Amino acid sequence: MTALLPAWFDPGDERAARAVWSRLTEPVDRQAARLVAAEGAAGALRVFLSGHAPADDSARWHARLASFDPGRDQAALARVGGRIVVPGDEEWPEPLDALGPGRPLCLWVRGPRRLDQVSRRAVALVGARACTEYGEQVTRELAVGCADRGITVVSGAAFGIDASAHAGALGVGGPTAAVLASGVDRPYPRGNVPLIERIVAEGVLVSEVPPGSSPTRNRFVTRNRLIAALAGATVVVEAGWRSGATITAGAAADLGRSVGAVPGPVTSPASVGCHRLLREGVTCVTSPAEVAELVDPLDAAAGQQLELPARPYDDLSPTDLRVYDALPLGKGAPLPSIAAVAGLDTPAVLASLGRLDLLGLAARNGDAWRRSPPGAA
Amino acid sequence: MTALLPAWFDPGDERAARAVWSRLTEPVDRQAARLVAAEGAAGALRVFLSGHAPADDSARWHARLASFDPGRDQAALARVGGRIVVPGDEEWPEPLDALGPGRPLCLWVRGPRRLDQVSRRAVALVGARACTEYGEQVTRELAVGCADRGITVVSGAAFGIDASAHAGALGVGGPTAAVLASGVDRPYPRGNVPLIERIVAEGVLVSEVPPGSSPTRNRFVTRNRLIAALAGATVVVEAGWRSGATITAGAAADLGRSVGAVPGPVTSPASVGCHRLLREGVTCVTSPAEVAELVDPLDAAAGQQLELPARPYDDLSPTDLRVYDALPLGKGAPLPSIAAVAGLDTPAVLASLGRLDLLGLAARNGDAWRRSPPGAA
Repeated sequence: MTALLPAWFDPGDERAARAVWSRLTEPVDRQAARLVAAEGAAGALRVFLSGHAPADDSARWHARLASFDPGRDQAALARVGGRIVVPGDEEWPEPLDALGPGRPLCLWVRGPRRLDQVSRRAVALVGARACTEYGEQVTRELAVGCADRGITVVSGAAFGIDASAHAGALGVGGPTAAVLASGVDRPYPRGNVPLIERIVAEGVLVSEVPPGSSPTRNRFVTRNRLIAALAGATVVVEAGWRSGATITAGAAADLGRSVGAVPGPVTSPASVGCHRLLREGVTCVTSPAEVAELVDPLDAAAGQQLELPARPYDDLSPTDLRVYDALPLGKGAPLPSIAAVAGLDTPAVLASLGRLDLLGLAARNGDAWRRSPPGAA
Repeated sequence: MTALLPAWFDPGDERAARAVWSRLTEPVDRQAARLVAAEGAAGALRVFLSGHAPADDSARWHARLASFDPGRDQAALARVGGRIVVPGDEEWPEPLDALGPGRPLCLWVRGPRRLDQVSRRAVALVGARACTEYGEQVTRELAVGCADRGITVVSGAAFGIDASAHAGALGVGGPTAAVLASGVDRPYPRGNVPLIERIVAEGVLVSEVPPGSSPTRNRFVTRNRLIAALAGATVVVEAGWRSGATITAGAAADLGRSVGAVPGPVTSPASVGCHRLLREGVTCVTSPAEVAELVDPLDAAAGQQLELPARPYDDLSPTDLRVYDALPLGKGAPLPSIAAVAGLDTPAVLASLGRLDLLGLAARNGDAWRRSPPGAA
């Protein structure tokens, strides 16, 4: 079949052509992506519109063509002050290229942060909508710690963990990016409109579906792969057994990105998805430093745990510990008695007492040895 | 040097000779173990007592010989109705042989359970003395679940997690074994005497140090390796950053045994040791079934998680999910409209509607299709 090329078709406008493809297809249309890769977006449109694309694909794209109005999409985007970002743009976030033919054909974007910059060091903090107070608290602390380290917090603007992640980052002026399953002019969920408006004002809001699109189940699933791909690591804070957050974690793992999960009480249903991930081998994450270590694996110091204060005998050799154990607390005991209690010969005990004396752990009084009184060292 | 052999020395009594070695040495005296392996326990004593053992070793063992009274140890054991178990005995727990030259020279044992039997399928449930109510509750539930499966609960009779582990098993008449760092006639801690007496009455109490021995720090460390070696798997329920329980976990790993840790809130200091273990790669354990899977790795069904009830659309293919998403809830829509919303061609939508109809998820009314009302399937 052959058709007249429509009036709106401009063979020179690659950016507009990608926006058209974004309208004609659902996310992850690999056939469209391959045709665009081979012919360029405008060239691919010409192939399709003049009836030279494979019949199956053409039929699918034609289903959307009837009601298509490119001016409407552009006007809707302009009304909310948005922009289109396509591969090759300076702002294009290169981490998305890891998606291969599943890479978005274009991104619809709002907000002052640049996608290429926020995706440079970013973590996806994701989790259940039905989360607990514990989950919200831990998410906020992780988000604040990431923001303090200049790490962008990426999430999906949903209720629960997602909202706490964005709010934590915004609260300390940190970078945050929200990826929607709906159009960027149609914030979802409605209850999070104030939060999403703040992200538009201070962070960046992004979607691969055109303005006006509703958030369907399928788009939530495909949206999750974008969250995973934008970030260097994905951390699940709380998630039920079946949860969108575990899908995001799976997408991150498929992309070779680091995946972490925050543990919680085994008595909490909100943590069963995290514990399932931990059993599958993802990294246990308990602090912002450990999130930073996932994002920057080479920066091992980032994840260094604070060492708790050691007890005086913590680093003694087994022999010295036996002698220390054998020392009386009271008025002291002679060498042979200490040797018998410790089960060591007297030269070994003498050498050990010398070391314990230096460490301030043993004290001598004539022929008798005892433990140093606490604080004497 | 040469010495007259003492009157108590009976060259034919291997069992008595092993008890003597247990008195003359501290746990994990590899030189004594090698001499006993080479000469037999009585033969090794003869070598030592007649001055033919290496001077360093002899001096260490002589330190204990001066105050040695073999009759006293036997009498103390008899007073508490105990028995000595040595390698070669039917009751000897073979899993301890994995300790090599660190294997105990003999075991001092009380209680009706046989060590060889309880060690056949056993888990070490260990953790902090300073535990939380959450830790105690989870420990009890794991211990009860293990007991129900005929798995012995091994622990150290300490306050906190250890006590909950033994009590949980005893509460349902399950097998339990406590390994002490002190002599079996000298229960420690004193506050757990009622619990330890119940273990003596219904389970089994074991130590490698002779009657009357006090629990020194070094003996706690060496005792922990026995807990790890007696059990097929070690699970840490709650533990601080530095904790005896993590030493037990390390000993289990060194022996090639399975190691698990129970997660908890990241805000709980009582769980930091468990989370540290999880970060080091030990298995996350959240239920008795998962403990059983660690103990019997081939019995995969033991660890099967209960699947939560699925939502009707959970197992749909991406195409069917797109069509399901596109179906109106109300009075239905014609095929071309559904195809446009789903971004699919009409033959694909028709095929998908057929499948959804079979699953009871779509309903047709003339030319219009809609989602089936809930419960209609």
